[in-house]
Amino acid sequence: MRLGVCYYPEHWPEALWEDDARRMKALGIEQVRIAEFAWSRMEPTPGEYDWAWLDRAVDVLGNAGLKVVMCTPTATPPKWLIDRHPDILPVGADGRPRAFGSRRHYDFSSPSYYEASQRICTAVAERYGKHPAVAYWQTDNEFGCHQTVVSYSPAAIARFREWLKARYGTIDALNRAWGTVFWSMEYRSFDEVDAPVATVTEAHPSHRLDYRRFASDEVARYNRMQVEIIRAHSPGRPIAHNFMQLFTEFDHYKVAADLDVAAWDSYPLGALEELWFAPEVKAKWLRTGHPDFASFNHDVYRGMSKLPFWVMEQQPGPVNWASWNPSPLPGMVRLWSWEAFAHGAGCVSYFRWRQAPFAQEQMHAGLNTPDNQLDVGGREAEQLAAELRSVLAADADAKADADANVRAQVALVYDYEAKWLFEIHPQGDDFHYPRFAFEYYSALRALGFDVDIVSAHAPLDGYRLIVVPPLPVVPDDFAERLARSGAQVVIGPRTGSKTVDLQIPANLPPGALGSVLPMRVWRVESMRPNVSAPVRFNGSAQGTSDGVARHWRDLIEPTKTRALEVRAQFTDGHPAYVKSGAFHYLAGLFDDALTQRLFAHIAHEAGLVAAPLAYGVRISRRGALTYVFNYGEKVYQHAGIAAERYVIGSPEIEPQGVAVYRSN
Amino acid sequence: MRLGVCYYPEHWPEALWEDDARRMKALGIEQVRIAEFAWSRMEPTPGEYDWAWLDRAVDVLGNAGLKVVMCTPTATPPKWLIDRHPDILPVGADGRPRAFGSRRHYDFSSPSYYEASQRICTAVAERYGKHPAVAYWQTDNEFGCHQTVVSYSPAAIARFREWLKARYGTIDALNRAWGTVFWSMEYRSFDEVDAPVATVTEAHPSHRLDYRRFASDEVARYNRMQVEIIRAHSPGRPIAHNFMQLFTEFDHYKVAADLDVAAWDSYPLGALEELWFAPEVKAKWLRTGHPDFASFNHDVYRGMSKLPFWVMEQQPGPVNWASWNPSPLPGMVRLWSWEAFAHGAGCVSYFRWRQAPFAQEQMHAGLNTPDNQLDVGGREAEQLAAELRSVLAADADAKADADANVRAQVALVYDYEAKWLFEIHPQGDDFHYPRFAFEYYSALRALGFDVDIVSAHAPLDGYRLIVVPPLPVVPDDFAERLARSGAQVVIGPRTGSKTVDLQIPANLPPGALGSVLPMRVWRVESMRPNVSAPVRFNGSAQGTSDGVARHWRDLIEPTKTRALEVRAQFTDGHPAYVKSGAFHYLAGLFDDALTQRLFAHIAHEAGLVAAPLAYGVRISRRGALTYVFNYGEKVYQHAGIAAERYVIGSPEIEPQGVAVYRSN
Amino acid sequence: MRLGVCYYPEHWPEALWEDDARRMKALGIEQVRIAEFAWSRMEPTPGEYDWAWLDRAVDVLGNAGLKVVMCTPTATPPKWLIDRHPDILPVGADGRPRAFGSRRHYDFSSPSYYEASQRICTAVAERYGKHPAVAYWQTDNEFGCHQTVVSYSPAAIARFREWLKARYGTIDALNRAWGTVFWSMEYRSFDEVDAPVATVTEAHPSHRLDYRRFASDEVARYNRMQVEIIRAHSPGRPIAHNFMQLFTEFDHYKVAADLDVAAWDSYPLGALEELWFAPEVKAKWLRTGHPDFASFNHDVYRGMSKLPFWVMEQQPGPVNWASWNPSPLPGMVRLWSWEAFAHGAGCVSYFRWRQAPFAQEQMHAGLNTPDNQLDVGGREAEQLAAELRSVLAADADAKADADANVRAQVALVYDYEAKWLFEIHPQGDDFHYPRFAFEYYSALRALGFDVDIVSAHAPLDGYRLIVVPPLPVVPDDFAERLARSGAQVVIGPRTGSKTVDLQIPANLPPGALGSVLPMRVWRVESMRPNVSAPVRFNGSAQGTSDGVARHWRDLIEPTKTRALEVRAQFTDGHPAYVKSGAFHYLAGLFDDALTQRLFAHIAHEAGLVAAPLAYGVRISRRGALTYVFNYGEKVYQHAGIAAERYVIGSPEIEPQGVAVYRSN
Repeated sequence: MRLGVCYYPEHWPEALWEDDARRMKALGIEQVRIAEFAWSRMEPTPGEYDWAWLDRAVDVLGNAGLKVVMCTPTATPPKWLIDRHPDILPVGADGRPRAFGSRRHYDFSSPSYYEASQRICTAVAERYGKHPAVAYWQTDNEFGCHQTVVSYSPAAIARFREWLKARYGTIDALNRAWGTVFWSMEYRSFDEVDAPVATVTEAHPSHRLDYRRFASDEVARYNRMQVEIIRAHSPGRPIAHNFMQLFTEFDHYKVAADLDVAAWDSYPLGALEELWFAPEVKAKWLRTGHPDFASFNHDVYRGMSKLPFWVMEQQPGPVNWASWNPSPLPGMVRLWSWEAFAHGAGCVSYFRWRQAPFAQEQMHAGLNTPDNQLDVGGREAEQLAAELRSVLAADADAKADADANVRAQVALVYDYEAKWLFEIHPQGDDFHYPRFAFEYYSALRALGFDVDIVSAHAPLDGYRLIVVPPLPVVPDDFAERLARSGAQVVIGPRTGSKTVDLQIPANLPPGALGSVLPMRVWRVESMRPNVSAPVRFNGSAQGTSDGVARHWRDLIEPTKTRALEVRAQFTDGHPAYVKSGAFHYLAGLFDDALTQRLFAHIAHEAGLVAAPLAYGVRISRRGALTYVFNYGEKVYQHAGIAAERYVIGSPEIEPQGVAVYRSN
Repeated sequence: MRLGVCYYPEHWPEALWEDDARRMKALGIEQVRIAEFAWSRMEPTPGEYDWAWLDRAVDVLGNAGLKVVMCTPTATPPKWLIDRHPDILPVGADGRPRAFGSRRHYDFSSPSYYEASQRICTAVAERYGKHPAVAYWQTDNEFGCHQTVVSYSPAAIARFREWLKARYGTIDALNRAWGTVFWSMEYRSFDEVDAPVATVTEAHPSHRLDYRRFASDEVARYNRMQVEIIRAHSPGRPIAHNFMQLFTEFDHYKVAADLDVAAWDSYPLGALEELWFAPEVKAKWLRTGHPDFASFNHDVYRGMSKLPFWVMEQQPGPVNWASWNPSPLPGMVRLWSWEAFAHGAGCVSYFRWRQAPFAQEQMHAGLNTPDNQLDVGGREAEQLAAELRSVLAADADAKADADANVRAQVALVYDYEAKWLFEIHPQGDDFHYPRFAFEYYSALRALGFDVDIVSAHAPLDGYRLIVVPPLPVVPDDFAERLARSGAQVVIGPRTGSKTVDLQIPANLPPGALGSVLPMRVWRVESMRPNVSAPVRFNGSAQGTSDGVARHWRDLIEPTKTRALEVRAQFTDGHPAYVKSGAFHYLAGLFDDALTQRLFAHIAHEAGLVAAPLAYGVRISRRGALTYVFNYGEKVYQHAGIAAERYVIGSPEIEPQGVAVYRSN
Repeated sequence: MRLGVCYYPEHWPEALWEDDARRMKALGIEQVRIAEFAWSRMEPTPGEYDWAWLDRAVDVLGNAGLKVVMCTPTATPPKWLIDRHPDILPVGADGRPRAFGSRRHYDFSSPSYYEASQRICTAVAERYGKHPAVAYWQTDNEFGCHQTVVSYSPAAIARFREWLKARYGTIDALNRAWGTVFWSMEYRSFDEVDAPVATVTEAHPSHRLDYRRFASDEVARYNRMQVEIIRAHSPGRPIAHNFMQLFTEFDHYKVAADLDVAAWDSYPLGALEELWFAPEVKAKWLRTGHPDFASFNHDVYRGMSKLPFWVMEQQPGPVNWASWNPSPLPGMVRLWSWEAFAHGAGCVSYFRWRQAPFAQEQMHAGLNTPDNQLDVGGREAEQLAAELRSVLAADADAKADADANVRAQVALVYDYEAKWLFEIHPQGDDFHYPRFAFEYYSALRALGFDVDIVSAHAPLDGYRLIVVPPLPVVPDDFAERLARSGAQVVIGPRTGSKTVDLQIPANLPPGALGSVLPMRVWRVESMRPNVSAPVRFNGSAQGTSDGVARHWRDLIEPTKTRALEVRAQFTDGHPAYVKSGAFHYLAGLFDDALTQRLFAHIAHEAGLVAAPLAYGVRISRRGALTYVFNYGEKVYQHAGIAAERYVIGSPEIEPQGVAVYRSN
């Protein structure tokens, strides 16, 4: 549990540096991330490095007692490099290179850029790998930001063909796996395969899915190259990458496997504005963010981080990049920070120390205003740093507990390929996987549960309740591992609906889960936004309904071999919720209230007690401590905990307030 | 009256074929369409044909007693052909070739493709032209699907120049016809004329209209080439093409003129979702389709088919290609099929025999599910086949009657150029010709009338009521033919508003109809969606209104020479509905209720009796039989017909139900 | 005060010309604009001019006693010129040339076109420069229409680099001014700088702003070239350009500085439909236009015109180019014309004499219909011409007064760079500068004030009230000039928020206005459309609000040195409206009612009396006359003026009516 900050010495007169470092330290900051956009200053002229300024900056920070997170500067190749190797630029779906003049203007598949990256990473790692102030590393910055995972360059297509060759071996195998016979799309060699773009109507879905898998693998390969260079020159320093919130364009499990720390960049207000939430929801949580959004990401990245995950960039005030950029309510910077620690963060690092007065992000707040006065966020960070010390002092175990790989009782299975597959092959325009996964998560959180978010390939033993949002492709051993876990398992619709090649399973959905769910999805339907399908529990009176399915429903029937308990039906008679053993299958996407009601009921069967929370209140337990957060507009009275157990705050929790108490 | 199915032997193990054929026959299916996407299997390597598999497939079907509809496979040229002749790819409005990887990736004007098509069509026609099992042919598949009529390739521009030369003779004639003097757009030779695309602001409307005419003619020329090859090698077998529902991008009258059978592909639910209907209308008919939509298309294609038209592809369950894809209510597959026969269809052919588990359309239902179980649609087809036999048995004339070119008493004039012209030159953003034509049709159907849909060039004698939706360019002899028909004639706004060159007629609209309508449209106005113009009949009280015009109104005044009866006015005093002799002119697009009221009144003047139908109920008469369909949610009691006259059903018609009774 | 018309002799048979000229004269028209699109007729073949037809046309008009406004024809280069110099075509943001086939297909930076323009302008000016009938000139036509100010051609980029070199001198100065260090965007030479387009994410805002400035300067340079040629060959004839309504893509102050007459093209109905107004507002003023819209433009162009401004094109009926094109109410053509004179117009010229029956604008009304009958607009022009004579007769001073540079008591500061800057750098998606400037103007007009619209660089002495809509970059001497003016000054939010290089000022906003406003904008927030911030005046009861801010608010605090009076607060405690001396700062964009209330209050402090007008009524004073306009639906009774003072109309003013009376 420590605080950090992002700092750009190259943006400021050197005269300010010492004061900046001193004030950081005084505020309670311990680590400082630098240099991720500084290539043009490290190497102002091709091949001629200028390390002097960066040496001085690192020394100033180190001398102030701060630990440096050194970055590779590959997110922003300089103009001279682009002019020498224009093939570095990624190519858009429109067939045009995406030009220099902002950032991330590189193609993961460009051989020129791979080589140039090796060179600059080696140079930085050699220079600072063993510097005493450099304690950590970050590779690149926000892989994939601005839709840069997928490129349609000749370089990408060439590598895609290699990737296909490695995956399928023969072109006949590819033709069979994809089903190219369908529209005479058969290939005679891998060299005939192009990128699935600019086709007359939708390109082949298996082709598209493989192109997404390939592009994701290219990110992992590129990151691995950087990690290996750093490890060689800077042994023992943990390596992180700063992932993005709810970003799904590459398989984060694969990239994180090469890192020590999965970090993420937390901007709750920008995310609320830009994501799927309805306008009235956006207005309701305008200045706080959605109460489950940061949590969801904490749980995602905790699940894939070897060391405790970090928040590498924490929103400190209004940002510049959303469609509208409101100001967080006073207290929210502190609340968000505490919430990260409550979920196991090792570090919360604010972005940025001081608002820059120029360029694209000049309207992005920092801990300090451009005229170098401490802003609201800075004051809240200061308060937090003090509280952090008192928590660590009051509870000797807090640090260790926070860092430990604590296991929740509830797991939610989260998958990246699912996002791509449903995006490519939605069958209903609003079938948005991350939204549905988030809604399941949010229902669990509103019931008071702590949740682990795990890959479908992760060990599942020890959980009492496992929730699987729509997962089209299930691992071969998934049914067995779920069954063996002993948990009650909730399966969302469309799970098991596709093979790994994006075909319909021979036994129809739920495919490989048919071994535990004796049923057959013989038909599906997607529903437009002004349509829903009412659901009624078996015990409920005829003519009433207990909620509705929106977006989607599976039409299912039992297969003959085993019994299937139908617990709820759509009002036209089709089963809506069925159960077999410990497996609960939801044949539709239900409204929030119905989802919560179902989850509470199934949790009860799992031996867990749901404790539905007051509006806007969220609770997390970690180590010896319990944390309570109030996102709402009213004072929340937390009952049942003796006042002396409170380490921070009291049972009366103000709006935007935080309380922390000893769990026992 | 017979059933068919679309079948893809190349998608399935050969071991399944015999069983498939046997089950088709047992179900009551008589004809099977095959091979329209099989080029890569017919010619896997350039110039090396593989007919063995197709020979076996045709034999299997023929041996089972099924008639084959053989297709040319030109909708899906294989990759090797594209790689050899990249100029086959059509070019989009963005100037980029539209790539391989789906279907219809060819340019109608490409000389390479014309030649390759001649070659493959000749090969297929030679091979199967006289095969005893091959009873019919289909050219290509769904001409124009995925916006492929218009291409901006160099090949298209070259042929456009030739087309212009043939149309205008001299460049001066073109300059005059278009009015290129307007913005110094004058040309000095045909070689200076490009495609009307990518201009700074809107391109010249006459230029755009001619480009659309040219592109339409290219489709007709391409189809004619295929027809001639087939006729040469397969004499006596009727040739069809499967047109699309409400598709207007080429002149279907011209293409159908070369065919024997105008077939169309009927997907009522997908159409409802994708077309102009308001969200609440889409929700209302979600699982039935709009009650007039399939009818409208039946009547369109019946009107242009030499032999009885076919439904070549009938939706058998949910489809995959609409924004949302609901499941049809039980009974609808049967209802839709009966409705086709009620409108004179010779065949209803389901798409497809079995849902494919791979590629783009894997979520498109078939008569069988991918695991080869008969689906709801298959069971309804089976029921229908039995009913069909009983109808044909009960009524000796039914078959003959259905095939006969029965004439209705009401005609609606429908035109393709009107669509292009109003799209190019709308004057109001929502002036959507097919919608307005459909709304006139729907009003007539709701009044209980059978309707023939005819070209403006068709013979009009014998009709009692002729309805002309907005028809900007009227044939020179149109007024005379209308007058001579003896019918009451209803003329929509904007009719006669343009010359064939897309200029305003010298006498102002209604142009050539001025001879029968002594009036002058001196001004027009389009109205935004939240504005309408109230209409009041002459007899109605001041300050009240009888309905409104939306979208559009013509401001008209009588010309001096003859009398014009003003029957309704807009509340600001301008005439809304005028009459001269048998000609009724509507000076606006009226709301549905007002349109129905007017049509009922004018029908009465024509000696016809409107019989407004109950909600969701539609009636068709054909030959000796009357058919009643219930699209609504409630049981409908059909009065006045003795029970013994019912061949199918009874006077109590369930939702999604059908009744058929002898008309006399 | 005179009437004019736009006329295209080349569109009509020569046999019509004499009658046209005679009827124009009889109608009361005095000047006729011709030839702005006639290049292909002036020079049908490269280098071979045909003046004969134009000589005859000018003679016909001159002989009828009409004055000709001769135009350069450069808005429509002919096809042969484009085919010889394809580099004339401008290049879009998509990297594609914008093609021939409409108009304005030229790049302001193309050397080929610059040279071709010099040649044709010289030819026209030589031919007609001293013709007795040619009294005025127009350069080109509607600079920038159809988004043609900015081009991304190689020619434009080459000239941009020169422009940057001239502005910054050294590349280091550019790097500092822009802050390119931010994302390693540093340049080593001007030749490395490209256009700010097609970047991966948003291009650098300073880069974008400079590109807009450059493009604007290119328009001014191009126009200046034409002006100089005309002055050389046609001394003494005033030169105009016809600007567009609320068009902001270049700095009109700079272009107008080279002209004698700033003219504009007035299409109140098309503008209403196409601009930001809400659907219900568009419906309310559907057939009249917004009551402040034409006024706003009159005041904009009056402010930059050396001679009295003109309306070069006045909407005479429905147009063709808006999304929907309603018909103006009878009387509106007269009302709009009178309103122009009331604001000081020297001429109102109708577009066009007769509706053309062909090409893109065939649905654009004229004073005559295509069949050459006088239309409603023509009849109203005729009435107006008669009234104009009576006004000029009744009031000897009217002509002189109208032409004089009358000064209002209220000024509104209007700026073009503000539009570009906020568009590039909005921080909230709906921060639309022209809208907010218009809303301030509209509030002043609804309070009965006459308003001068001035540049931030204009002299400000003599005004009593100066209103400054959000002005991000303030001139260095702005605070001083405002203070010296003696006026009460209202400053909108975001004023002074940026330096000229688009950086945040070192002292934070209001930057250079900090000398008169002792405050600091320490944070801002933009608000989504369904959010607003309530405002309460100091005296108002707790828990109530007096209105709201929408879109935006500045969070401000006083700086220590001087006192700042807080007059209203947001309900969360932040100051909403503060005052220091004569400077009033609004920390948000307030709703219309609150804005009006504030402006009325501040006007009172300025010694002015606000006289809020009835719904739809607007008043203008000019010279010895007062003009009253009724845009509403009800008769308006204008009180307090003796009947004998009315020159036109009476105190009872019908809807769409006009009254003119002697002010004293």
